[in-house]
Amino acid sequence: MTRPESSAASTAVRNVLFIMCDQLRADYLGCYGHPSIRTPNIDALASQGVRFTRAYCSAPTCGPSRMSFYTGRSMTSHGAIWNFMPLSIGQPTIGDWLRPRGVEVALAGKTHFAPDLDGLQRVGAHVPPEAPVLEGGFLVVDRYEGHANPGPEHPYTKYLRAAGYDVADPWSDFVIAGEDEAGRPASGWEMRNAHYAARVDERHSETAYTTDVAIDFIRRQQGRPWLLHVSYIKPHWPYIAPSPYHAMYGPEDCLPACRDDAERDDPHPVYGAYLRHGESSAFSQEKVASHVKPTYMGLVTQIDDHLGRLLEALRATGQYEDTLIVFTSDHGDYLGDHWLGDKDLFHDPSARIPFIMVDPRARPETRGSSVDRPVESIDFLATVADAFEVPDTDHVIEGMSLLPFSRGGASAPWRFAAVSELDYAFREARVLLGRDARRCRGYMVRSDRWKYIYWEGFAPQLFDMQEDPMELRDVASNPGHASVLALHKEYLFDWLRQRKTSLTVPSTRIVVSRDTIEPAHGIRIGVW
Amino acid sequence: MTRPESSAASTAVRNVLFIMCDQLRADYLGCYGHPSIRTPNIDALASQGVRFTRAYCSAPTCGPSRMSFYTGRSMTSHGAIWNFMPLSIGQPTIGDWLRPRGVEVALAGKTHFAPDLDGLQRVGAHVPPEAPVLEGGFLVVDRYEGHANPGPEHPYTKYLRAAGYDVADPWSDFVIAGEDEAGRPASGWEMRNAHYAARVDERHSETAYTTDVAIDFIRRQQGRPWLLHVSYIKPHWPYIAPSPYHAMYGPEDCLPACRDDAERDDPHPVYGAYLRHGESSAFSQEKVASHVKPTYMGLVTQIDDHLGRLLEALRATGQYEDTLIVFTSDHGDYLGDHWLGDKDLFHDPSARIPFIMVDPRARPETRGSSVDRPVESIDFLATVADAFEVPDTDHVIEGMSLLPFSRGGASAPWRFAAVSELDYAFREARVLLGRDARRCRGYMVRSDRWKYIYWEGFAPQLFDMQEDPMELRDVASNPGHASVLALHKEYLFDWLRQRKTSLTVPSTRIVVSRDTIEPAHGIRIGVW
Repeated sequence: MTRPESSAASTAVRNVLFIMCDQLRADYLGCYGHPSIRTPNIDALASQGVRFTRAYCSAPTCGPSRMSFYTGRSMTSHGAIWNFMPLSIGQPTIGDWLRPRGVEVALAGKTHFAPDLDGLQRVGAHVPPEAPVLEGGFLVVDRYEGHANPGPEHPYTKYLRAAGYDVADPWSDFVIAGEDEAGRPASGWEMRNAHYAARVDERHSETAYTTDVAIDFIRRQQGRPWLLHVSYIKPHWPYIAPSPYHAMYGPEDCLPACRDDAERDDPHPVYGAYLRHGESSAFSQEKVASHVKPTYMGLVTQIDDHLGRLLEALRATGQYEDTLIVFTSDHGDYLGDHWLGDKDLFHDPSARIPFIMVDPRARPETRGSSVDRPVESIDFLATVADAFEVPDTDHVIEGMSLLPFSRGGASAPWRFAAVSELDYAFREARVLLGRDARRCRGYMVRSDRWKYIYWEGFAPQLFDMQEDPMELRDVASNPGHASVLALHKEYLFDWLRQRKTSLTVPSTRIVVSRDTIEPAHGIRIGVW
Repeated sequence: MTRPESSAASTAVRNVLFIMCDQLRADYLGCYGHPSIRTPNIDALASQGVRFTRAYCSAPTCGPSRMSFYTGRSMTSHGAIWNFMPLSIGQPTIGDWLRPRGVEVALAGKTHFAPDLDGLQRVGAHVPPEAPVLEGGFLVVDRYEGHANPGPEHPYTKYLRAAGYDVADPWSDFVIAGEDEAGRPASGWEMRNAHYAARVDERHSETAYTTDVAIDFIRRQQGRPWLLHVSYIKPHWPYIAPSPYHAMYGPEDCLPACRDDAERDDPHPVYGAYLRHGESSAFSQEKVASHVKPTYMGLVTQIDDHLGRLLEALRATGQYEDTLIVFTSDHGDYLGDHWLGDKDLFHDPSARIPFIMVDPRARPETRGSSVDRPVESIDFLATVADAFEVPDTDHVIEGMSLLPFSRGGASAPWRFAAVSELDYAFREARVLLGRDARRCRGYMVRSDRWKYIYWEGFAPQLFDMQEDPMELRDVASNPGHASVLALHKEYLFDWLRQRKTSLTVPSTRIVVSRDTIEPAHGIRIGVW
């Protein structure tokens, strides 16, 4: 790009810092209203940018959610319905859009991506090991998936060994392990140990490591535009934090459980099946939830502290003023709300995500604003493509650019509702419900007032988010709501028809031409 | 394949002869009830096989229809919505399924396929010129697209020149050109010339040429299983036939026009726009339709004659008894019915296709039978995959195997309706209607009694195929049919949700596993 930096002649940004946490609930941030958590750096981002209060992940499960961020396409459209399900080679990803614009698209952290090796073989493609198609479109600065032993050859393992954690599996023995009062190992896989400090020094923890990698990348940049995906594994389980974050919060700092005994009376079948999952049995016990939440909060504040370092590096290298910053998460965490653990279903603790955008080209009056329109993960890539002025994306990217909310034009028509999807084919719930593996889909339609959920093979659910913002009463069977159900079902019908499956020709190449997409073959039709 | 031929131990077939005509209406065949056309060889196939009387193409336009045959997927799913729109590299095709089973998948004739070169470049694939991905999965024996000058380098052009048609463009000058009474050139592009004999000798015509290529392929086979797609360009326009087929039929042999003045009063907007197309203006004149139909019939009988040669070659080489034969077309031809020309819309003359299957492993009692269940183009590949016992197709192929109709088991549940699709973004109708290029879709849902058509942005259409089999009265606005409309719309909603977009993992690999599609990462969840 030859234009001068911060040129008034162009609204294009230079860089994108795309920060994602894993399993971070929106309401566990100060700027989203948490009464006691300390997240000053994230709150500062919100004060400089636009905070979306009704942002939903396209799928409340890591892998499909992330593929929606990376493709700008809903789960139905990208098809990678579970963690590490290969993303079809037919699906263009973020790097495919930005690399031709001269942008380096880099990764530090987690993606949950798996390449479509069968597809590459099918088309006869031989690609080098560093090909972006093998990494979701990213150039890997450091890929760290977390929540499993990364293995002896992983850079983080080597880093830990070099730092003195000289065991076969330093991740299991130090990063996710504490010590009990008697000095015995206390694994983070057991939630009873969540209050112990991880044995790893905070400077060597996962969050610190990923931040170090990211800062190193930022410092190395010499003017070429870049997008860096800083993708933290935390506050995802195993729930254990290094000192001092392990002891930063107590039960009194936590949000109270959002649940009601009545929820478990005659529950919706899918919800009922999830109630029987192991993580739900555990988290439905108050002792578990109140034991884990302070650690979860500590992990969030730890991220916030490191985010401070990251943003400082951006400022110190003079790049802050030209960098679009997005802070978000792939989904939330029930933490015992609604008697559930982990995620997958569509209650706000699981499906709602934080989404903060700091646009260096924002109008001043939008800084610190909040927006309550329904926003989806797929809007991220639409926004970035807009920020880099990428042409001809409309046949593939399904999201809507959020730049009007920072630059003006936000009064234009917006979508009626946010959609999120779940496929529980890989979950115990499928077995419990006796479902065919290909008919386990649920679709959330969250409009201004209502949250409607369509389930394959079961009755829908409906929550009145105005009268019942805690989503404690499913009112789908209320005869008075028949028209509400019909309206939201019709929206889903429209949404399904509007999924973009015609991926090879942009709208600008659709011209009226009788026989082919390339006009003028000498064909004459209907001539007497 | 090492099993003995015609082994009773296996029901797998050895070969597939996949014969497709272009623009052949089902009702212009003797076995489908035409009172005067002579199609003895096709009728003989029907007498040995199963004839499907309610077969519909997945899209009444060449390219998308063919991609549905080759992928076993609806137009919405494969995404190639217009002629020569590249088929995404994410879409497996017939060769991808059969080649790993040791089957040679070959082409003689037309496909209307365009490769996804952008996609190959995107994933960094460098493929050789003969790679099947560049030809819709086929090994090209001879590709001949027809209805345009094939160019000086095409084998057919060279063949014509070697046969003495020594001009720059023998296709335009001989194959689609006749001579008027004064010996002046009379181009087949002008329908007034449809009654003249083409200047090409019948032995050198397109139908003869493609048959020769196919016979040569069949004779060369030495026991390796094969599928040969014999894909005739005729009876597609330009409407001109070589002698003696140009004078074989007269107006008295043609089906009367199926149309009513009332159809043009206050027509449905999309239908109304198509009425204004040039080919409709021409064909709505009786003189045009009655002038063209005899030629169209001659071209069909010509195909039938050459089919006799083709089947004789199959018998003479001892392969008939092990070959599954499918005879079909990509769509029909209005020929003036409903005041329309060409195809695209969903009336039976356009959307219904002949579909005859001769299964060498059929139960004798099914031979010569007819089946009136709704069948779609996408069933072709499902049937072939079944015949070759290809495993793990259920995440990609959307069609249903038709083998139960020849082998027993036909009493199993079948689909409620056949679906067909149109996207008129590339047609004049879009301009006439002022539609956005991405909102030009129509969906036909043809159930036992009804034909329902959902149009983006317009009211639906409804025809009562029992009371009005000629489809002359759109009864969608009849208040008494509200429940019929709702039922068919609900089926479309179901159909949309059941499109297969998760292409990288077959159902056999869907196992309950908390975190990834590969179980056992040492992850422990929800443990206290």
